[in-house]
Amino acid sequence: MKLQVTQENLNRALSSVGRIANSHNTLPILANVLIKTTKNRLSLLATNLDIAIVHHIGAKIQEEGAITVPSKLMQEFVNSLPQGVIDLELNGTKLDINTDQYHSIVNGIIADDFPVMPLINNGQSWKINSLVLKKGLQQVVFAASNDETRQVLTGIYIHTKDKKLYIAATDSYRLAEKEIGKSSNDISVLVPANAINDLLRVIGDYDGEVVVTHDDQQILFQTGESELTTRLVNGNYPDYQKLIPNKFTSTIELKKNELLNVTKVSALFARESAGSVTIELNEEKNTLNIHSVASQLGENTATVNGKVKGSGDITLNSRYLLDALNVISGENVVFGFNGKLEPTLLYDPKAPNYHHVIMPLKS
Amino acid sequence: MKLQVTQENLNRALSSVGRIANSHNTLPILANVLIKTTKNRLSLLATNLDIAIVHHIGAKIQEEGAITVPSKLMQEFVNSLPQGVIDLELNGTKLDINTDQYHSIVNGIIADDFPVMPLINNGQSWKINSLVLKKGLQQVVFAASNDETRQVLTGIYIHTKDKKLYIAATDSYRLAEKEIGKSSNDISVLVPANAINDLLRVIGDYDGEVVVTHDDQQILFQTGESELTTRLVNGNYPDYQKLIPNKFTSTIELKKNELLNVTKVSALFARESAGSVTIELNEEKNTLNIHSVASQLGENTATVNGKVKGSGDITLNSRYLLDALNVISGENVVFGFNGKLEPTLLYDPKAPNYHHVIMPLKS
Repeated sequence: MKLQVTQENLNRALSSVGRIANSHNTLPILANVLIKTTKNRLSLLATNLDIAIVHHIGAKIQEEGAITVPSKLMQEFVNSLPQGVIDLELNGTKLDINTDQYHSIVNGIIADDFPVMPLINNGQSWKINSLVLKKGLQQVVFAASNDETRQVLTGIYIHTKDKKLYIAATDSYRLAEKEIGKSSNDISVLVPANAINDLLRVIGDYDGEVVVTHDDQQILFQTGESELTTRLVNGNYPDYQKLIPNKFTSTIELKKNELLNVTKVSALFARESAGSVTIELNEEKNTLNIHSVASQLGENTATVNGKVKGSGDITLNSRYLLDALNVISGENVVFGFNGKLEPTLLYDPKAPNYHHVIMPLKS
Repeated sequence: MKLQVTQENLNRALSSVGRIANSHNTLPILANVLIKTTKNRLSLLATNLDIAIVHHIGAKIQEEGAITVPSKLMQEFVNSLPQGVIDLELNGTKLDINTDQYHSIVNGIIADDFPVMPLINNGQSWKINSLVLKKGLQQVVFAASNDETRQVLTGIYIHTKDKKLYIAATDSYRLAEKEIGKSSNDISVLVPANAINDLLRVIGDYDGEVVVTHDDQQILFQTGESELTTRLVNGNYPDYQKLIPNKFTSTIELKKNELLNVTKVSALFARESAGSVTIELNEEKNTLNIHSVASQLGENTATVNGKVKGSGDITLNSRYLLDALNVISGENVVFGFNGKLEPTLLYDPKAPNYHHVIMPLKS
């Protein structure tokens, strides 16, 4: 292997794939990144056995070849180099890296030992705009569960229903769903939320089409320069749509940022009570009161104005409320609820393709 | 206690004193901040028994009084409030905090229980410009030791010699000294480096005179709005000035940023060898070579140009070299050394009032 590449390209590729390379007790090569020439391009690949990311860059290839090198060192090293051309040349398992000023040798492990994920055969394939996908995923991914004992809920559910394409996530305490477009395909896949967070980094600022390909076991997302492959989560996702309420005994429409601010302050006094805050709507005064009590520290009440229909009160986890308000995009937000144990709903009245359900706390 | 204060002033005071308030197993009140009225001002005070910080702000006092309240909650709460007037009113040990929108009660502990540091009696007092003091302290404080078994070296030595005022710190592996002005006083105090870090935050952007007062036990720094008092370190500081070399077999003058860049890269390859890098000066070529080897990972060599007198080589800890280069202010730096076990010196040729000595590693 012998080639020239720019510091800028190599640095971008290393930081794109590097995050999933990790020191692994039984398989040290997983801390390495695979560097290989493919048809006059240079490809960098890292994997943690569940997820693989490939990044392709242009390079001037003089001799074909492949090697794996320690990802962290390589990333920090290339990131520290000045802009300009970098020469890479492989001697045995040693990679010589030279610029005008720097002469380095990085010890590699042969590429044959690097684990490769199986290819997707006979999968279905569809396309979606990268910005639509990214925005939608950002609005749902945090609602997935971290609890590995409930595997199904650690996934993001991508599925079609009545020719519409939805993404959804729930940890059973809250639920986020976004309709991200139309589709005539019949899609139903469950992608690990971990992999979605890596996908969001891979998409980055890329503005174009993402090609999505999946079979029963794996899903592949392809952007301009990058590819992310991940195993799917097995299992049947719950029929969550029946949990989204559409009738309410109490609703308020108000400025989203005002609700966000009072919730932040209220949350400070709710730490001793697992984030519990009580919201009270007053139809006569057209106000929302938010109240929290810390037996040791003190208590807080704040009031904001809005358009109320139906007085009532409900107790919620303030963290879930903050998470939801942070991803709802409009200026205004609608908050509706029914009985004290029934699901509540938040949505932007101008963009009702996003639903955020929060289960109340017992009060 | 009943008063009005602006959110901006109260927030600044809380964040200035709050950092040293800390939960303390045996004395829970140390997690609180003391709020008291003094002569139409409001004073906030926090202490960890070694250091005390007071911050004075203007307020409209209607009734005198004092209370201590949880520092962290109070700081986060006031920081989250909108700009404008805040009403504070004490009811028993409960502090009512009201704005137009927020009504809070914070549970306090009576002020009588708050530990106060003794006053400084018959101390000597002198003044210094805040920016000169701050810059000087930033250039030396990191060179102090963290090793509590060598108490004396955990202090910053402020002292006069031949009518000049010096500050110095050393952990016995490196030594930093700055001459910060002239003084006809006879000063010799040893201030804990911890307290200096707090002092740097208290000084912040304050541009004016700092009044320094000390006796045998304590030192007080007063800026416009704030006061920091700390216990002194006991013991005799080593006669460090004789360790600063003034003759060299090898020196180089070069661009500081170029040396900084190659040292950063070299340090990446020096992690397995405790940061060890070897510097080689070549008088004929007028170059500095920096070399590091990681037996597992690889090795690196980089070259920069400079003005060399006397070829030679020396092995150093790259972290110490980076720390020094990060605080030397000029465009150029001079690096000089002698034998392999003798102290090396770094300084800015245009500002020779700052000396940075690094002991070499055995190579």
